[in-house]
Amino acid sequence: MNKSKQAKISVVFIGSGNLATHLAKAMYATGYSIEQIYSRTIESAKVLAEAVDAKYTNQIDSISKSATIYITALTDEALVDLVSELTEGREQGLWVHTAGSVPISLWKEHCSHYGVLYPMQTFSKKKEVVFKEIPVFIEASTPSDLELLNGIAKTLTEKVYEASSEQRKNLHLAAVFACNFTNHMYTLASDLLKDNDLPFEVLLPLIDETAQKVHQLKPNEAQTGPAIRNDKEVMDDHLDLLYKYPNLKHIYKEISKSIINSKAKNK
Amino acid sequence: MNKSKQAKISVVFIGSGNLATHLAKAMYATGYSIEQIYSRTIESAKVLAEAVDAKYTNQIDSISKSATIYITALTDEALVDLVSELTEGREQGLWVHTAGSVPISLWKEHCSHYGVLYPMQTFSKKKEVVFKEIPVFIEASTPSDLELLNGIAKTLTEKVYEASSEQRKNLHLAAVFACNFTNHMYTLASDLLKDNDLPFEVLLPLIDETAQKVHQLKPNEAQTGPAIRNDKEVMDDHLDLLYKYPNLKHIYKEISKSIINSKAKNK
Repeated sequence: MNKSKQAKISVVFIGSGNLATHLAKAMYATGYSIEQIYSRTIESAKVLAEAVDAKYTNQIDSISKSATIYITALTDEALVDLVSELTEGREQGLWVHTAGSVPISLWKEHCSHYGVLYPMQTFSKKKEVVFKEIPVFIEASTPSDLELLNGIAKTLTEKVYEASSEQRKNLHLAAVFACNFTNHMYTLASDLLKDNDLPFEVLLPLIDETAQKVHQLKPNEAQTGPAIRNDKEVMDDHLDLLYKYPNLKHIYKEISKSIINSKAKNK
Repeated sequence: MNKSKQAKISVVFIGSGNLATHLAKAMYATGYSIEQIYSRTIESAKVLAEAVDAKYTNQIDSISKSATIYITALTDEALVDLVSELTEGREQGLWVHTAGSVPISLWKEHCSHYGVLYPMQTFSKKKEVVFKEIPVFIEASTPSDLELLNGIAKTLTEKVYEASSEQRKNLHLAAVFACNFTNHMYTLASDLLKDNDLPFEVLLPLIDETAQKVHQLKPNEAQTGPAIRNDKEVMDDHLDLLYKYPNLKHIYKEISKSIINSKAKNK
């Protein structure tokens, strides 16, 4: 898509958080015209609007009725609550949400052109994210809407995939394991080190290498440690060491059991 | 320590695996004289011996009786089995093991100078490791032995820490959480993606970012996802999605519970 074609597309953002900010700036930089930013927090709408030369509002009534595309970046709950009110009188636009676990069918009763643009990444306020590495999953109600979303997604990243709502739900769930649960393993390790006067930073090279390994090996090939060797002596020692920590002991047992099961399954 | 001082120290390696290979090469490169490599597999002893200009053997009887330092890099089990036989007639040397979970007291009855040099990292045959980033934990029977081990550890890495056997056991256990259990989370995520015709590689940016985040934030500050928000609706959806996978469903419940407990504890 060339710049003149992009300029004819006017975009409204519903939400002004981390994702909306990155996406709006990336689209603006590649020639899209950002018409307006809506956010319940006017200050936050204003900051993003000024960065992308757009208008802004915190009133749903004042959201433009003539945009080509409306991109929502809200919490799942807010999106479900507001979908009727947002789309009313704006049914002609292409409505796109950015949530992993919300199906495309959310839009069905509310407008005729709709889709999903889901960037799979973990966002924390205090940590900047490089978008060009992030996989983005798209889905749309028609082939031409999909093409439009593909062009938008490519302003963010090279890694654009088409995925159904069912696949996206499973992606989001897989991400809970690979990101949220992984981070909790770091937390449990950190608790243990703290109680033994050891700094968490000593684990960072190991954490990095564990992540790096699965770029080259399949995760089940990369598995090391006492559970995969079924080394009962070391596991019993570890469980003894954890006598003061019933929660860690429980998690240790359950995940070790799961590793042993996984190995049996992969044989 | 200068090179001439190092040259007076002769070193024997017991074991010729990944760790022995890296350590022997690093010590050789900084001027230590590697006298001999012992391995039960003669071919493996030979390969390493040739790289560091040393003799080699697969017979315990033929291990040098006059080395300054003996560094063992064996499995925990082999080390415990062989400790008597190895040290017999070689009690004058400084004996060092490289295992996370074996206490320094293993040596006590067998020799008078002893210690531990534990590099905390995950080793897989198919994946090279950069040693200079790895933290190494040392412990020794006397201050002068500790100084010697410090010099050796510094040939591998800048990150040398003194740690007691108790601390080292807890480090090893923390590493099980941060590495082995984390890798298992990758495996479970990978199983889920496979069953939904999605390639594992789509998770790599998320896995990398999850590891990178804890360089800047504490793990409990970096936590995201439905459990930390206590978002019961999303968690119930996920459990429904997992109806075909009783193991993943069980792990999902247990870790989510642990995340919720952790949050309550940190309040």
